[in-house]
Amino acid sequence: MPNVSERGSAMPPSPIRKLVPFAEAAKKRGTHVFHLNIGQPDIATPKIALDAIRSINFDTLEYSHSAGNISYREKLVNYYNSFDIKLNTEEIIITTGGSEAILFTLISCLNPGDEMIVPEPFYANYNGYAVASGIDIVPITSSITNGFKLPPIEDFEDKITDKTKAILICNPNNPTGYLYSKEEMETLKEICLKHNLFLFSDEAYREFAYDREHATSALELEGMDEHTILMDTISKRFSACGARIGAMVSKNKTVMAAALKLAQARLSPPSLAQIVGEASLDVPKSYFSEVKEEYKKRRDTLIGRLQQIEGVVCTNPGGAFYAMAKLPVQNAEDFCQWLLEDFTHNGKTVMMAPAAGFYATPGLGTDEVRFAYVLNTAEINEAMDCLEAGLAAYKSK
Amino acid sequence: MPNVSERGSAMPPSPIRKLVPFAEAAKKRGTHVFHLNIGQPDIATPKIALDAIRSINFDTLEYSHSAGNISYREKLVNYYNSFDIKLNTEEIIITTGGSEAILFTLISCLNPGDEMIVPEPFYANYNGYAVASGIDIVPITSSITNGFKLPPIEDFEDKITDKTKAILICNPNNPTGYLYSKEEMETLKEICLKHNLFLFSDEAYREFAYDREHATSALELEGMDEHTILMDTISKRFSACGARIGAMVSKNKTVMAAALKLAQARLSPPSLAQIVGEASLDVPKSYFSEVKEEYKKRRDTLIGRLQQIEGVVCTNPGGAFYAMAKLPVQNAEDFCQWLLEDFTHNGKTVMMAPAAGFYATPGLGTDEVRFAYVLNTAEINEAMDCLEAGLAAYKSK
Repeated sequence: MPNVSERGSAMPPSPIRKLVPFAEAAKKRGTHVFHLNIGQPDIATPKIALDAIRSINFDTLEYSHSAGNISYREKLVNYYNSFDIKLNTEEIIITTGGSEAILFTLISCLNPGDEMIVPEPFYANYNGYAVASGIDIVPITSSITNGFKLPPIEDFEDKITDKTKAILICNPNNPTGYLYSKEEMETLKEICLKHNLFLFSDEAYREFAYDREHATSALELEGMDEHTILMDTISKRFSACGARIGAMVSKNKTVMAAALKLAQARLSPPSLAQIVGEASLDVPKSYFSEVKEEYKKRRDTLIGRLQQIEGVVCTNPGGAFYAMAKLPVQNAEDFCQWLLEDFTHNGKTVMMAPAAGFYATPGLGTDEVRFAYVLNTAEINEAMDCLEAGLAAYKSK
Repeated sequence: MPNVSERGSAMPPSPIRKLVPFAEAAKKRGTHVFHLNIGQPDIATPKIALDAIRSINFDTLEYSHSAGNISYREKLVNYYNSFDIKLNTEEIIITTGGSEAILFTLISCLNPGDEMIVPEPFYANYNGYAVASGIDIVPITSSITNGFKLPPIEDFEDKITDKTKAILICNPNNPTGYLYSKEEMETLKEICLKHNLFLFSDEAYREFAYDREHATSALELEGMDEHTILMDTISKRFSACGARIGAMVSKNKTVMAAALKLAQARLSPPSLAQIVGEASLDVPKSYFSEVKEEYKKRRDTLIGRLQQIEGVVCTNPGGAFYAMAKLPVQNAEDFCQWLLEDFTHNGKTVMMAPAAGFYATPGLGTDEVRFAYVLNTAEINEAMDCLEAGLAAYKSK
């Protein structure tokens, strides 16, 4: 029989999926599972967007432009302009989720065998795209002990070889929730200009910044027009994960020309979901202040509880809706599995994402977990009751 | 500035897009353009599917399962079963259009540098996917003189090297409309088994077969379970090109395991469009007989007219909604451009796809065009009036 390809067999399993069968088994036994393991928010998609879908009145669901509907791209120009990012519609390609923006960016910018530096822990799906497109991810380690700050410039320079072509960041960060400062962004600019590197910036959580207006975009960095590729998505911004609408944004014309040909090969992004994306941009400004307020309350609840649990070390992340914590256990994955398999607290338990899968360096993060605070504060409190009781029971096993 | 990647700059332009600016300019001048150049049918998407979209009643547009909703995959099992193809839900991954099924198939099965034999002329977007995934397409030529029959087995064997890993077919064929016979499918099986090759089968147009019930699926070939990967889509079947919903189907477990990890890396196929796909399967049986009848009428009108134009050679294709014709011109692309730039007939003109872009061998197909009969018979007749008058005027230039 013909063999699966080497890259096919090298595709990494998703670290947040390993425990899914245990969660399913727990639910079958009647246990309530608080899902803090995955970034699927319970926040409603803007009603204005779902109403736009309910009122479609065409007869044929046609292809759109390969770069996405022009009306949508025009509204996105205004959206980015509200962050003082000046763009035209040719600098935006609507993609099938942020995922496709990542794929298009890697293929358009990097050759197989090229290296891309990524601060770890990082969003684990970058691994899948790297394997699929033949890129080598070179991690530099950020640490829970300083809240996952950007590693010092020397750490980057230690890793730069003649194969290094790009740095990839996620800001605000998944999985750490870390929000890069303006100074850190300037440091990244300095490295990219000095070594002629692309800066790939995943800004899915732009609006979710809790100690300032919004995250600093890589597109705000002056003199970086040819270097910066923004990978964006409406999944989290408008709680529309299932839409699968994102965008690849850059002022680098040759990169965008290559990406457009990729976009043409796949014909068009999903037409219905573009209606969701376009209509979502009509939300009133209060939408973000309300959603942000809700996430901030959740973050404060989660962090407040975690800090009270003996032996738990956690940071107070400035953005996104994630937080990392170090637990007083030897192996967080074993503990997470045990919580699902062998533990309940008043008939309930909690599911977290073991953090080792977010590190590329073997052995790191084995006692850490990631929380996605995508449940309301009452549920987060209940989930923390489970964690607290679980840790006590696990210790005395 | 950092350079675009080699594969990025090697991405081929789509042959059907080169003329788009000329068509746009013609329309701006007030010329009516009959679009026979692209497979965007005017047929209505099933009302039952659009009504399902109009009645969504959830509040949050969530991720689906990475392989697609189980309810949809269960209905697809029944759909394939109606063609006597026995599957289970693990043998189906819902993809973002047929396009993503092609991408997942190439990445899961082939390594960079591997060769894939494809009968030419072929669907030009295979080139884009081949470049993006580092695959070399090796064409074997089929010819308009015998109606684009499958080339003889010797032609395949001449091209097979130790790098050859797969044969890719599209059946019924885009761009030729050719419908492979059961015997030709058996020939393909013989070659694949003898040389241990994958058979990738693009069956987007399965139902659109005009001299029999439906096209023979590669999945019907016995003893080929480990070799066959089906790449499917609802784009043409249910005239839902903009949905971007397809499927990768195979009984090869290791391939499907690799593809599932790719599917997980991109999280999920579009949720709204899956509703379209699932609801479409509830159309009554009469849906296909009516749509097929309409396409058959269009084909007969188109071919009837083409056969009456002096110097035009065309085949009578058995499936899909495409037809190729050889025109009495030296360069079909120049002629197509001229029709848009310099010609009108009663204020109208016709747009066709120059066929050279569907051949990988340089110099082939330069005097051929592809028609997509996606307009009604009255419009096809008017378009043929334009072509006939255009050819006469072009000749006497």
